Amino acid sequence: MSRPLLGHLDPDFLSLMDEVRTMLRQAFRTSNETTFAVSGTGSAGMEAALVNLLEPGDVAVVGIAGVFGERMADVARRCGAQVREVRAEWGAPLEPAQVEPLLEGAKVVSFVHAETSTGMRQPVEALSAMARDAGAMVVLDAVTSLAGLPVEVDAWGVDVCYSGTQKCLSVPPGLAPVTFSPRAVEAIAARTTPVQSWYLDVSMLTRYWGSERVYHHTAPISMLFGLHEGLRLVLDEGLETRWARHGRLGAVLSKELDALGFEQFAREGFRLPQLQAVRLPEGRDADALRRALLDRFDIEVGGGLGPLAGNAWRIGLMGESCHEDAVEFLLEAIREVLD
Amino acid sequence: MSRPLLGHLDPDFLSLMDEVRTMLRQAFRTSNETTFAVSGTGSAGMEAALVNLLEPGDVAVVGIAGVFGERMADVARRCGAQVREVRAEWGAPLEPAQVEPLLEGAKVVSFVHAETSTGMRQPVEALSAMARDAGAMVVLDAVTSLAGLPVEVDAWGVDVCYSGTQKCLSVPPGLAPVTFSPRAVEAIAARTTPVQSWYLDVSMLTRYWGSERVYHHTAPISMLFGLHEGLRLVLDEGLETRWARHGRLGAVLSKELDALGFEQFAREGFRLPQLQAVRLPEGRDADALRRALLDRFDIEVGGGLGPLAGNAWRIGLMGESCHEDAVEFLLEAIREVLD
Repeated sequence: MSRPLLGHLDPDFLSLMDEVRTMLRQAFRTSNETTFAVSGTGSAGMEAALVNLLEPGDVAVVGIAGVFGERMADVARRCGAQVREVRAEWGAPLEPAQVEPLLEGAKVVSFVHAETSTGMRQPVEALSAMARDAGAMVVLDAVTSLAGLPVEVDAWGVDVCYSGTQKCLSVPPGLAPVTFSPRAVEAIAARTTPVQSWYLDVSMLTRYWGSERVYHHTAPISMLFGLHEGLRLVLDEGLETRWARHGRLGAVLSKELDALGFEQFAREGFRLPQLQAVRLPEGRDADALRRALLDRFDIEVGGGLGPLAGNAWRIGLMGESCHEDAVEFLLEAIREVLD
Repeated sequence: MSRPLLGHLDPDFLSLMDEVRTMLRQAFRTSNETTFAVSGTGSAGMEAALVNLLEPGDVAVVGIAGVFGERMADVARRCGAQVREVRAEWGAPLEPAQVEPLLEGAKVVSFVHAETSTGMRQPVEALSAMARDAGAMVVLDAVTSLAGLPVEVDAWGVDVCYSGTQKCLSVPPGLAPVTFSPRAVEAIAARTTPVQSWYLDVSMLTRYWGSERVYHHTAPISMLFGLHEGLRLVLDEGLETRWARHGRLGAVLSKELDALGFEQFAREGFRLPQLQAVRLPEGRDADALRRALLDRFDIEVGGGLGPLAGNAWRIGLMGESCHEDAVEFLLEAIREVLD
C-alpha cells in the first residue's frame, strides 16, 4: 500500500484489477464472471448484495443468529423488502427445518457463514440447497470465513457472496470482495426499478471492472494494491493449507482456553477456529483484562457484543496473525493478566 | 499508510479520528459537529449527502453543468426525490436566475463547486443564499475544490458539503470527507422514513465518530492514517497559501497552454486552476498524445468526458503535484510530444 499511486484508468492499474478478479475467483471457489471488490468495507459488501437483488415488496428470508444477521435484516428492510426473520439462539446455528416453512415466494435467502459476534459457524450446504429448490437466491456473508474456512461458492450453489479484507485475508479494512452468480446477474438485469444505491450499482460497477472500462467512481488504488498482495499470499500458501492452519491453531487455542477456565459461547460442533467468543472465568472483569492485554502486551481482543457485552472476549486468530508463535504469545499474555 | 494497523476501537485510533475531525473542520471552514470521513470515495460522499437528506417525494433542485451534476441528479432520483434539473451549457456556470423559479417547495438545492469534467468553477455564494432564502438546504460537491480553492462552508451557508481525498488533499482515493450543518442534522432527525442506505446512515455513523463510539462498521484504518497525514500537511502549509499556490501555478499553466495552441473549455472567469479541460491544437490526436505523455514521461492526464470525449485533455494540478517544477516538467513534456 505504500507503492506510488497509479491512475484508476492507467493500463498498469487495469492489469492489476484483472489479476485481483482472477485471484478473488480462486479464493471464492467460483467461476462467476461478476467477481470484484466493492469500494467500502465488508458492510458495504452486504449492502451491495442486498440492494442489487431486492426490489420493494420482494420477500427476503433472513437468518439471524447474531449482530451480523440483524444487520442483514435491517439492510433488507431499507430496500423495501418484506423480511421474514428466522432466529436462532445466539451461539447456535440456524436449522433448515426453521427456514423451510418461510420459503414460499421468497426471492432471497440470506445468512451469515461465520458470525463474528458469537463465534458460530453456520453450515451452508443444506440451507443453500433448500433455498435453491424453492427458487430463491442464496446470499452468504463470508466476511470472517473467506480464506479461514472452506467457502465453496459454486459447489454450494451460493448466488451472492461477500467478504471483507481485514479478516482472514489479512489486508487492512477498506474493500469488500463480492461475487454474483449468472443467475443473480440475470435477476438484476430483470429489475423493474433502479438499484437504490448509485455507488453500489453492480451493473455500473461491472462496466468498469469488465472489459469496457467505463468510468464509474475512482477506485481506491492503494487498497487494491493491498488486496492484490494479500490474495497473492493467500494463494501462494494454498487455500487448503490455510484452512488447515486455522483449524489446527484454533483447536490449540480453544483447548488451552478451556484449561484456563474460559467458556466457549458457540455451541460445540459449530465453533469457528478463527474467532472464538469466550466468557471469562468466574469473577473476572472482561473489559479491564482486555485493556490489560492491550496496555501490557499490545494485543487487542474484541469485547462482547449483544448478550455477550461486558462479560466476554472475542479473540481473532485470522490470516497472518494465526501462527504458532502468536498463539503461544497470546496464551502467555492471558496467563499473565489472569495472574 | 504503511503504519502498522490499529484496531478500529483502539484508544490510539480513536484519538487519531478526533484529530481528523478537527482538521476536517478547519479544511471545510466550519464549526459543524457532524464532520467526518465516509468510508468510500467521493461518490460515496455524494450519496451520503443525498440519501440522508432526501425522502421519497421530496423536491431536489439539481444543477447540472457536467458529468458530476448528472450524477447528483441520478443519485437524487434513486432516493425517490422529485428532481428539478437546472442545466448550464458545459463549461459555463449555473445562473441564479435559472434556479430561482424552481425553488418553491424544494427541500434541497444541490450543485458542484468544481466540475471535474469541464474545468468550470461554480460561484457558490449567490446560489446558496437564494436557496436558503427559499428554505432549502444547500448541498455542495467540493470533491475537486477542497484545499485547492476557497471552500467556506459556514460563511457561504452550505448545509452539506462533501469531498474526496485524492484531489487537492493529495491522499490516495478511498475516503470522502463530509460535513453536515446543525440544520441538516435536524432535518435528518425529523425524517419519517429510514435512510435507505445502512452503510451511509449519518445518524449511525456519528454515534461511532462521536463520543459514544458505538460500533457501526470497521473503519478503513490505513486510509484514515493517510487522511490524517494529508490534512496535517495541508494545514501546515495553510489553506490561504495553498489556495494561492494553486491559483498562481494554474495561471502559469493556462497561459503556456494558450501559447501552445490549446483552447480552454471552461468559460473565462470561471476556470479552475487545478483542473484544466483543454481542446488540443487543430489536427492533434488527444488520446494518442495522452498515451505518449504516459509512456514517455510517466505523466497521466485525463481524457475528455461527455462532449469533450476524444478531443480533449483534463490536466490536474492538485495538491502535492501543483508545484513549479511539476508544471515546468509537464510543459516540457507537452512540447516534446507535440513536436
